[in-house]
Amino acid sequence: MTAFPAHVVVREVGLRDGLQSIQKVLPTPQKIEWIRDAYAAGQREIEVGSFVPARLLPQLADTAELVAFAKTLPGLLVSVLVPNLKGAEKAIESGADLMLIPLSASHAHSLANLRKTPDDVIAEVARMRAARDAAGSKILIEGGIGTAFGCTIQGKVEESEILRCMQRLLDAGADRVSIADTVGYANPAAVHDLFTKARALAGEKFWCGHFHDTRGLALANVYAALQAGVPRFDATLAGIGGCPHAPGASGNASSEDLAYMLADMGLDTGIDIEALLELRKKVAGWLEGESLHGALWQAGVPKTFARSGQTVAA
Amino acid sequence: MTAFPAHVVVREVGLRDGLQSIQKVLPTPQKIEWIRDAYAAGQREIEVGSFVPARLLPQLADTAELVAFAKTLPGLLVSVLVPNLKGAEKAIESGADLMLIPLSASHAHSLANLRKTPDDVIAEVARMRAARDAAGSKILIEGGIGTAFGCTIQGKVEESEILRCMQRLLDAGADRVSIADTVGYANPAAVHDLFTKARALAGEKFWCGHFHDTRGLALANVYAALQAGVPRFDATLAGIGGCPHAPGASGNASSEDLAYMLADMGLDTGIDIEALLELRKKVAGWLEGESLHGALWQAGVPKTFARSGQTVAA
Repeated sequence: MTAFPAHVVVREVGLRDGLQSIQKVLPTPQKIEWIRDAYAAGQREIEVGSFVPARLLPQLADTAELVAFAKTLPGLLVSVLVPNLKGAEKAIESGADLMLIPLSASHAHSLANLRKTPDDVIAEVARMRAARDAAGSKILIEGGIGTAFGCTIQGKVEESEILRCMQRLLDAGADRVSIADTVGYANPAAVHDLFTKARALAGEKFWCGHFHDTRGLALANVYAALQAGVPRFDATLAGIGGCPHAPGASGNASSEDLAYMLADMGLDTGIDIEALLELRKKVAGWLEGESLHGALWQAGVPKTFARSGQTVAA
Repeated sequence: MTAFPAHVVVREVGLRDGLQSIQKVLPTPQKIEWIRDAYAAGQREIEVGSFVPARLLPQLADTAELVAFAKTLPGLLVSVLVPNLKGAEKAIESGADLMLIPLSASHAHSLANLRKTPDDVIAEVARMRAARDAAGSKILIEGGIGTAFGCTIQGKVEESEILRCMQRLLDAGADRVSIADTVGYANPAAVHDLFTKARALAGEKFWCGHFHDTRGLALANVYAALQAGVPRFDATLAGIGGCPHAPGASGNASSEDLAYMLADMGLDTGIDIEALLELRKKVAGWLEGESLHGALWQAGVPKTFARSGQTVAA
């Protein structure tokens, strides 16, 4: 049995990956309440939005305002997604701590989603790195390699292509690299295999696993990635989300189920599950009528569950 | 990485564990169609019902008839659940291949569910073994240890008590022993730990893992048990089921999601996923209005998925 990371981060991406798939525009005060409550529940890494043109994703038009609020919370690592240099410039200006650049390892998906090849995106990352350094900014640059287990357009994506993109991202100046199963094609054996190789390649620069629960395997995949030593996972509260350019994809791993699994395994996440479930209730009210996911909210935590993640006698 | 079992059995228990939690009585011809279609889809182990008094579970009153039909299908291993010696006598008479005796390792749950202590049940297993041998029957006796990760009444159940019950079941003449997370309290780390010890104790007599998906961890738990070498898992089509004596428990692992995960990992299950999804559609129609689960039916299999379980280029 591999030793698991002692501390595991559940990075909340519901405000970005979740809300971008939902038509309804959540008002800024509610998003701020979400960030505040997530922070109060112990979450210390939150992707608050995306610097994409507001006409493309009006749901995320308030990203700069959200970064400004989130940066008032001590010790919170504030992430944003950026699709290109222009977005990166806004991210640098916003004062966010990390910007994630999505790269689709599937050429077909990359062209459909971003109208760029993977290598075009890598070249753009090099320009972002130059802009970051020229601005004297400390914002971290994370290259997130998506459709890493295949995609709905192209089908199979070669492992060698993932690892090639990862090396090139690092060469281009990315501080962090991550892997995403954008459309829920991964299985735990494939995850263990690829994430082991990715960690061997990128070492401590390997940052995060991002799994969609399209076919019910997100938590099994997280477990396999944990065994490969991955200490950080993206998730969305109530499992909201999907990918607008990948038909059939449903939500992300749900933050509350993931945080519960980790804590019940005795791994420290810093998250108060009950507080997270309270927040889920609130967000579910705001998103009434939308498709929500997850299991824990319905059953509640077991009688044997303690906040520390240690099981206790009843 | 542990070597996985090359062949993995998904034992369908929807006709017993699933239907017993549903008020609606599924007519015998529909159950027969279910068994026939599951067999046609490649399932070779099915728990068709339970020899409990019909006044307690009218849903399962036709078990003898279902055994008779199921035994006409070549190579199908036909299981039934029996709660006591009287049930075992009926199972022996029915011609079933295997009878499962549930034992609850939680004393409190055992008393509430069966009005017996675990050791009372083990003593009954010894009487069943004597009856089986006296009848010259070849029916296998499986002792299934439930609430193995805790229960809603008692809370924590000690690992040492699980292993003690397991040894005593073997001593009493059980041919097979299994472990069930009756109320969805398990996590993959705990599963790996307990199943590794159980396999070390029982060897090839260790038969099956049974996971409820109450908190979304069923498939992660299966993956952990696979790593401990467990080659057989209970599941219910559309994830139907629960435990009438364990409030809050929802359905089992869903057969179709489980079979898909295994096949996508390249493990042989003998199951035609598309045929199983067709059967799910049929059963969902019969059980309209009931709470169904699972993810694959909604998303479909990935473009990269091949029946053989090997991924293919699109």
